[in-house]
Amino acid sequence: MRNEFLAVAVVKGLAMDAVQRANSGHPGMPMGMADIAVTLWSRFIKVDPDNPTWPNRDRFVLSNGHGSMLLYAMLHLCGFPITMEDLKNFRQWGYPTAGHPERELELGIETTTGPLGQGFANGVGMAVAEEHLRARLGADQVDHHTYGFVSDGDLMEGVAAEAASLAGHLGLGRLIYYYDDNRISIDGTTDITFSEDVDTRFRALGWHTVAVDGHDREAVAGATLQALDNQEQPSLIICRTHIGAGSPNKVDTPGAHGAPLGAEEVKLAKENIGIPAEEDFWAPSEVYRFMSEAMERGRAARREWESRDRTADWHTLHTRRPVRLDSPGFEPGASVATRNVSGKLFGQIGRKVPGLIGGAADLAESTKTVLPGDEGFSRSNRLGRNIHFGVREHGMGGIVNGMALHGGLRPYGSTFFVFTDYMRPSIRLSALMELPCIWVMTHDSIMLGEDGPTHQPVEHLASLRAMPGLWVIRPADATESVEAWEMALNRTEGPTVLVFSRQGLPVLDRSGTEGLAARGGYVVRSGDDVVIMATGSEVSVALGASDLLESHGVSARVVSLPCWEAFEQQDPDYRQEVLGRGIPRVSIEAGATFGWEKMVGSDGLAIGIDRFGASAPHQVLAQQFGFDPRTVAERVLSHLSD
Amino acid sequence: MRNEFLAVAVVKGLAMDAVQRANSGHPGMPMGMADIAVTLWSRFIKVDPDNPTWPNRDRFVLSNGHGSMLLYAMLHLCGFPITMEDLKNFRQWGYPTAGHPERELELGIETTTGPLGQGFANGVGMAVAEEHLRARLGADQVDHHTYGFVSDGDLMEGVAAEAASLAGHLGLGRLIYYYDDNRISIDGTTDITFSEDVDTRFRALGWHTVAVDGHDREAVAGATLQALDNQEQPSLIICRTHIGAGSPNKVDTPGAHGAPLGAEEVKLAKENIGIPAEEDFWAPSEVYRFMSEAMERGRAARREWESRDRTADWHTLHTRRPVRLDSPGFEPGASVATRNVSGKLFGQIGRKVPGLIGGAADLAESTKTVLPGDEGFSRSNRLGRNIHFGVREHGMGGIVNGMALHGGLRPYGSTFFVFTDYMRPSIRLSALMELPCIWVMTHDSIMLGEDGPTHQPVEHLASLRAMPGLWVIRPADATESVEAWEMALNRTEGPTVLVFSRQGLPVLDRSGTEGLAARGGYVVRSGDDVVIMATGSEVSVALGASDLLESHGVSARVVSLPCWEAFEQQDPDYRQEVLGRGIPRVSIEAGATFGWEKMVGSDGLAIGIDRFGASAPHQVLAQQFGFDPRTVAERVLSHLSD
Repeated sequence: MRNEFLAVAVVKGLAMDAVQRANSGHPGMPMGMADIAVTLWSRFIKVDPDNPTWPNRDRFVLSNGHGSMLLYAMLHLCGFPITMEDLKNFRQWGYPTAGHPERELELGIETTTGPLGQGFANGVGMAVAEEHLRARLGADQVDHHTYGFVSDGDLMEGVAAEAASLAGHLGLGRLIYYYDDNRISIDGTTDITFSEDVDTRFRALGWHTVAVDGHDREAVAGATLQALDNQEQPSLIICRTHIGAGSPNKVDTPGAHGAPLGAEEVKLAKENIGIPAEEDFWAPSEVYRFMSEAMERGRAARREWESRDRTADWHTLHTRRPVRLDSPGFEPGASVATRNVSGKLFGQIGRKVPGLIGGAADLAESTKTVLPGDEGFSRSNRLGRNIHFGVREHGMGGIVNGMALHGGLRPYGSTFFVFTDYMRPSIRLSALMELPCIWVMTHDSIMLGEDGPTHQPVEHLASLRAMPGLWVIRPADATESVEAWEMALNRTEGPTVLVFSRQGLPVLDRSGTEGLAARGGYVVRSGDDVVIMATGSEVSVALGASDLLESHGVSARVVSLPCWEAFEQQDPDYRQEVLGRGIPRVSIEAGATFGWEKMVGSDGLAIGIDRFGASAPHQVLAQQFGFDPRTVAERVLSHLSD
Repeated sequence: MRNEFLAVAVVKGLAMDAVQRANSGHPGMPMGMADIAVTLWSRFIKVDPDNPTWPNRDRFVLSNGHGSMLLYAMLHLCGFPITMEDLKNFRQWGYPTAGHPERELELGIETTTGPLGQGFANGVGMAVAEEHLRARLGADQVDHHTYGFVSDGDLMEGVAAEAASLAGHLGLGRLIYYYDDNRISIDGTTDITFSEDVDTRFRALGWHTVAVDGHDREAVAGATLQALDNQEQPSLIICRTHIGAGSPNKVDTPGAHGAPLGAEEVKLAKENIGIPAEEDFWAPSEVYRFMSEAMERGRAARREWESRDRTADWHTLHTRRPVRLDSPGFEPGASVATRNVSGKLFGQIGRKVPGLIGGAADLAESTKTVLPGDEGFSRSNRLGRNIHFGVREHGMGGIVNGMALHGGLRPYGSTFFVFTDYMRPSIRLSALMELPCIWVMTHDSIMLGEDGPTHQPVEHLASLRAMPGLWVIRPADATESVEAWEMALNRTEGPTVLVFSRQGLPVLDRSGTEGLAARGGYVVRSGDDVVIMATGSEVSVALGASDLLESHGVSARVVSLPCWEAFEQQDPDYRQEVLGRGIPRVSIEAGATFGWEKMVGSDGLAIGIDRFGASAPHQVLAQQFGFDPRTVAERVLSHLSD
């Protein structure tokens, strides 16, 4: 008790000092949640500071990531490789103690948080992964909990609402969240905007809830025991806390949230909580010893776990091997919607990539992402690999990220391409964290037809190509789609968006170009007078235009550019060879032309659609918006004669 | 009763026939909600088919927009200008009967829906607008209800969860939603993914709820009366319905949701509901008469309302005049964060634009968007113009759109620029609907500093510039910021994103260039050897680089390009004059270079950041990422010598 009391005070002191020295940051949350953190880390959580990536460790998510100093202080005191030097350089260039936690498993940081609600959903994904892997591999291999801290801000975010609803539905009993009910937000007390009954809301979602005084460590421990005891429901421990607890003048005020307390107030706070007021970054050895001893629980568990034999299944799931897919065999000229290729491949992918798990946001039948013969992941079937996310794109995004963060699995999420907008913050975090998530997006352009402009992507290819670290692949036909899936499955350094058509596309004759989609771009048909480059459904339009141009004596090269990011990784000679040197360039894509100047150059012609679409059959839209071979050929001729 | 019964059957028939003829669409929802629709329209809703835009009409939102045929059939039967020809051309090019409803007030379509959850939030915004305007103008001017239909899919979406929480908090008693509790989603019954207790959840959010049989019209009417009676809480009428009700073989199945029933089943269904099985688009005159007579309620209300005098305030709010802002006067060379300009202008804007209303997602203190002297819109103060949206960016987006849709107000929403990702679907809908929303986004680049990459926009300028119909303005300094606000306030044909810096920027000497921001781009400093174009904080970096280049004998022109969209509307001569003809071009922007090739050309140099940022003070980041005058000058020199 004395040790816990002291540890809490030290954590508060470190948080105050680090924020003060950085002259920016959030002291209020670490001070408000220090009692909970120390209770959880000293009494419950099973991690091993010497082996931070031990696969069966408990997971911890700091969803209210602005309180990063709380996590850094805990990791430091527990013996993870975050040094006092790191704490003293909080929020500085080159140090791991960033303003918001940035995933670094070796340091004990499980996920990147800060954008509110994302961590909440990540934890749900981790809990899904744990349930699934425990069912597949047995509890002697996988058997842990997922803990997390969440704030008012997290609970106000829609992504958390979606994830919470699904977590309750799935009965994720190993998921335990501590809600920092401090009743203060940036703009004032939460009663200016947040008066819902959180307890009742979460019970309505199927959660176990319990409310405690967040500064009463025995009460927090008791509630944790209750939560551990409940194996059928995720738990929300509602902790009434005081933001900036310990600061005599800023406690319970928005002023404690996002700015240094000020040197004078820090001194007063230190006096108030009983640590040396004149000393900065004070951490006595007894606190290190106490926390380190508490870590023995995790160390012992890890040693015991290491001594067990790993099953063959374990190794299969935890070893990554290159994947080669057998093409189902498509007849050149046949019409195949590229989305349908996923359907044809999923049985094979499921066998070759045993870690594949995922699903769609209530559109699996449309996006064709169903593993055959799988009854679905549910409360009663933890072995299922098809996850029904419901109409919860954003929750899906955060949950897929969480499954990827957990390890052992290869998760994907799927919906219509236009709805990447609904889950964009999660896609961005998958890119920032370099997670090998696969985002399977269908209905890829205005050519989805009758559903109209609300469902028709226009600017989405450009907006995702602009995102660092993300690969966007839009294959031209069925055979490129097989290669696209292979690229996505073999990409381990970051996420991939697969962009598939709703409508049938002619299968191209790929003799001589097999496998070239992996280079991002390649010549489909040679020609010397003009280069027409295209992606997806527009490659066959380009071929049609090229036929028409031939009758005008114009030899048009056709280039397929399914993946700009892969193409940019090719050596300059190859790229020049494909795009041509000194030959006029034209691009066609049924999307915004924004960004295509890079490919066609200032004198080139970019054919696209720089307005919203319309509701009509896709053949009509192709005509109206000029994505038919005749119009393209005319525009190319007119461009050449300019 | 007999008439209602017949009207329900006719609505079902029209929906089945239109979907069948289009060979695409969603018959299940119109059939499942026809009883509710006919009850609402025949007994309650006050609209006038001859004056669809009458400002004091009740608003109706079809949040489950895929059931568009229900809305079209009701509008047609009630006498709105949607013809039988339109119904027969459902989902066809050139007809207003699009796959999902597209806002067209003249037809009675209040908002564009389809992306789930958005309509839910729009209705909340309409109800906020009504409460506010009623308080300002009096109930003899504004006094109506907002009705809406919502689905399982809507309730699963985070945006609806956010909006619902705020609606409950604000006690929006004039908001009445009918929840289509049909227990079927696309991928199966809702119990595979959605088992929450909706009734309890909404009560926890502060809503009035009542559950009824959605096919018992008397029960629906009774619940509506209860909801109308409750002036303190928004109401959710939970209607147990059967999707595809009337179809003997497809009722209660996912098969009724998103595909034609098939000719045979349509016939069987028509027999089943007692309308001519062989006749398509059957609508007997008695149903037209019945619905038209029901509309007399709205017509009379409108006539009565028209006869009243309008107050001066009414006219002020409902007339748009050009806005000219007085600059607070900024000293060239002084350091002013562009976000702070909003703070300085808000008093003036509030006076000059009396319809201005809005707020931030719990960041008003940071985004500087607070109307001075206003106590905030709340349950007890409907006159407030500062809205505390809470940490609910997406809900804010949909609510701001709803206020704009209502009319009489000029709404804005505000948060950090990176969080445009959280509300992107709503921003897109504001562009698609051409709503004059103002999105005020601060902390506009990696230069926000210590908060790190989760909070640092990189690809956001590119991703929003790619969106049709949206204006993105990133002013270079305080004086351009005043002009940017003027541009946004005077733009009525669509939404504008204002992008402001967190950090201080030097005030430029604008003598001779006053007002030119409105042209989107202009020459800040002349020069003949190279053109350096930039936006926002990088304009002063470009000026610094230009100084350094001068000492190398290079005369560098500096161009500020605050708004690409406005610049593209200038005549080509002006654009050439600004960007230079035959002079090497360089761009600098602390964001992705994606898209800048358009401005600098294939031979140009685009300086930007094509990776995620880092947590550190902004001065350090500027050095590390090369956004300092020295590095820029060196890169320009090296580019010129290539």
